[in-house]
Amino acid sequence: MQNTPNHDWTPLHAHLHRTLKERRLLERSQQVLVAVSGGQDSLCLVKLLLDLQPKWGWQLAIAHCNHRWRADADANAEHVQQLAQGWQLPYYQQTAEAVTTSEAAARQWRYKSLTTIAQQYRYTCIVTGHTASDRAETLLYNLMRGSGADGLQALVWERPLTLDIKLVRPLLDVTRAETRQFCQTAQLQIWDDTTNHDLTYARNRIRQELLPYLQTHFNPQAENALSQTAALLQADVEYLEAQAAALLEQAQHADRPGLNRTILQQSALALQRRIMRQFLQQALPCAPNFGHIEKLVSLITAPNRSQTDPFPGGTIAYVEDNWIWLKPASGDDRTN
Amino acid sequence: MQNTPNHDWTPLHAHLHRTLKERRLLERSQQVLVAVSGGQDSLCLVKLLLDLQPKWGWQLAIAHCNHRWRADADANAEHVQQLAQGWQLPYYQQTAEAVTTSEAAARQWRYKSLTTIAQQYRYTCIVTGHTASDRAETLLYNLMRGSGADGLQALVWERPLTLDIKLVRPLLDVTRAETRQFCQTAQLQIWDDTTNHDLTYARNRIRQELLPYLQTHFNPQAENALSQTAALLQADVEYLEAQAAALLEQAQHADRPGLNRTILQQSALALQRRIMRQFLQQALPCAPNFGHIEKLVSLITAPNRSQTDPFPGGTIAYVEDNWIWLKPASGDDRTN
Repeated sequence: MQNTPNHDWTPLHAHLHRTLKERRLLERSQQVLVAVSGGQDSLCLVKLLLDLQPKWGWQLAIAHCNHRWRADADANAEHVQQLAQGWQLPYYQQTAEAVTTSEAAARQWRYKSLTTIAQQYRYTCIVTGHTASDRAETLLYNLMRGSGADGLQALVWERPLTLDIKLVRPLLDVTRAETRQFCQTAQLQIWDDTTNHDLTYARNRIRQELLPYLQTHFNPQAENALSQTAALLQADVEYLEAQAAALLEQAQHADRPGLNRTILQQSALALQRRIMRQFLQQALPCAPNFGHIEKLVSLITAPNRSQTDPFPGGTIAYVEDNWIWLKPASGDDRTN
Repeated sequence: MQNTPNHDWTPLHAHLHRTLKERRLLERSQQVLVAVSGGQDSLCLVKLLLDLQPKWGWQLAIAHCNHRWRADADANAEHVQQLAQGWQLPYYQQTAEAVTTSEAAARQWRYKSLTTIAQQYRYTCIVTGHTASDRAETLLYNLMRGSGADGLQALVWERPLTLDIKLVRPLLDVTRAETRQFCQTAQLQIWDDTTNHDLTYARNRIRQELLPYLQTHFNPQAENALSQTAALLQADVEYLEAQAAALLEQAQHADRPGLNRTILQQSALALQRRIMRQFLQQALPCAPNFGHIEKLVSLITAPNRSQTDPFPGGTIAYVEDNWIWLKPASGDDRTN
C-alpha cells in the first residue's frame, strides 16, 4: 500500500484535517485532482493529502500544466511526473500550444486545462496549493489597482468551475513559510521556479520585496493580517453583491434598459454603486470604471433631463422624470 | 477688505468651490474654524478658503495646536500667528500641557482642543487640510494592522464632533503634490515639520518610502487608487454596520445578554460577524478581535451546549437551544 499513514503526523496535518472537516471542503471517497507545479506549496499540499488519504478514502491524482514559459519547463514537468510515479498516483499533463504573454492569460489557460482533465477522467474536485501568502499578495496587487472592496477579495476557499467540478484551496490559511518548512522536513524535492526571481513581474516583486519590507517595518504578521482582511472583505462583497442584484431586479424596467429612481433613492450608496455597475456591465462593451459608476449614481438625485457624457461605445444615460434611461450612440449601438 | 478675490483663480479654487457645493460640506455665512499646522496642506486650505470667502460669506478663523513635540514648536506657532495677522483673521492657539507620547493621544488632544476653541467662540464647523494622500496612507496603515473593511475606511468628508460642531475635510480628493504646487504658486511660506523626516513614525515611513515605492514599481496613480478604495469601503462599511445594528436589535434578548440563533442563521456571514462584534463590544473590557468574533460566529450553527474559551475578562459564550448566552467569569464580571 503506497498510502499508509506517514509516521510523521505534524501539526500541519492536523490543521488541514480540521480545516477540511470544518469548512466541508472535500468529501470522503471523493475523486480529487491535485494541481502540482512542483513548487513548495503544491508539493506540500499533495504530500499532506497523501498522508490524510487513508482517513478520507479519496482517489487522488496529479495534474501538471506546462506553460512552456521557461527553458526548464519540460524538465520541471518530468520532475513532477516522477514524483507522481513514486507516490503511485495517476499523472495528467497539459502543455500550452502557444506561450501565453500575460499572467491573466496563463491563469485562464491553466484552469481550462485542469477542468478538461477533470472532466475527461471524472474528477469532481480540483485542489490547488494557494496559501495565505498568495491571498495577501493578491490583496496588495488589487489594492494598488484601486478596485474597491470587490477587487480586494480574490482567493476563496472554494468555488464551482462547472456544474460538477469545484475548485478547492485547502491551504488558504497556511503561509508560504509553513509550506517551505514542511517540504524541508518531509525532504520533498522542490522545483525552484526561476521566473520567481524576475522582479519585472509585479507579483514576484510583491512577494520578494514588498511583503518582506512590510514585515520588517510595520508588522511581522503582515501576511496574516492581509490574508485575514481578504477573508473579511470576501464575505462583505458576497453579501453586498447579492443585495444589489436583488434591488437591480426590482428597479429595472421590464422592457428596456432603464432604472426606477424612486427605488434607487431608498438604497444606501454602497448598493447604488453596485446596482449601477451591474446595470452598466449589461450595456457597455467594457467593464465600467469608478468614474462611469459615479456619473450614473449622480443621476439618481439629479434634476429632470440631466444626462451623462458618453460612456465607452457612445451610450448616454439621461433622466426622464422617475427613470434613468440608456440611449445607445446615434440610435445605433454598434458605433464606437 | 482683506478678503477680496485673488486674481489667480486656479483650477484648484474651482475644484474646491464645486466640492463644497456638491457635497454640501459648508454653508453660506458659516462660522468656520480652520485648523492650521503651518504645513503645506493646511496653508493651502486656508488660502483657498480665504479666496472663496467673498463668494460664501464665511466668518473664518485660524486655530493652531501646539503639541510641544519639537524644539521649534513655539516658532512654528508664532509663524502661523503671523500668517493669521497678515490675513487679518482671528487666531486661537492651544498648547499641550504635557508632551503626548503617541500619535493617537496627540490626535485625541488635538480634536479636543479644536472643539474647545469652537465651542468657546461659537464656530459651527472645524475644517482640516487632510488630503487624498492622507487617506491613502491611513488605508495602508490600517491594512497592515489587519482590521478588515472597517479599519480600511477612516478619513471621511465630514462627521459630527458635537451636536453643534462638525468636522469637515474639504481637500480629501486633492493630493499632497497638488497642495505643494499650490503653495509654491501662491508663495505661501510653509513651516517644514521636521518630525516628518523621522522614519521611526510608521506614518512618515508610509509617506516617504512606501508610497513612492508603490508609485514607482506598481502604479504611478497608487495614491489616488488607494484614496478611491477608501471612499468605496467607507460607504460599504456604513451600510453594513447599519444593517448589522438593526439585526442585533432584533436578535438580542430583551433582559439579558443573549442572541437568538434562528435570526442570526438567516443573516449573511458579513452581518453575522458585525453583529457579533457589536454584541461583544457591549460585554468585553476591550475591543474584540478577529478570533473572538469567529468563535462567537461558530456558535450560531454549533450543537446545543457548545461553548467558547473565555474571552478577555473571563466571559464565556455558550449555546442553550435557540440562544447564545454570555456568562461572566465565576459569576463575577470584575475578574480578569
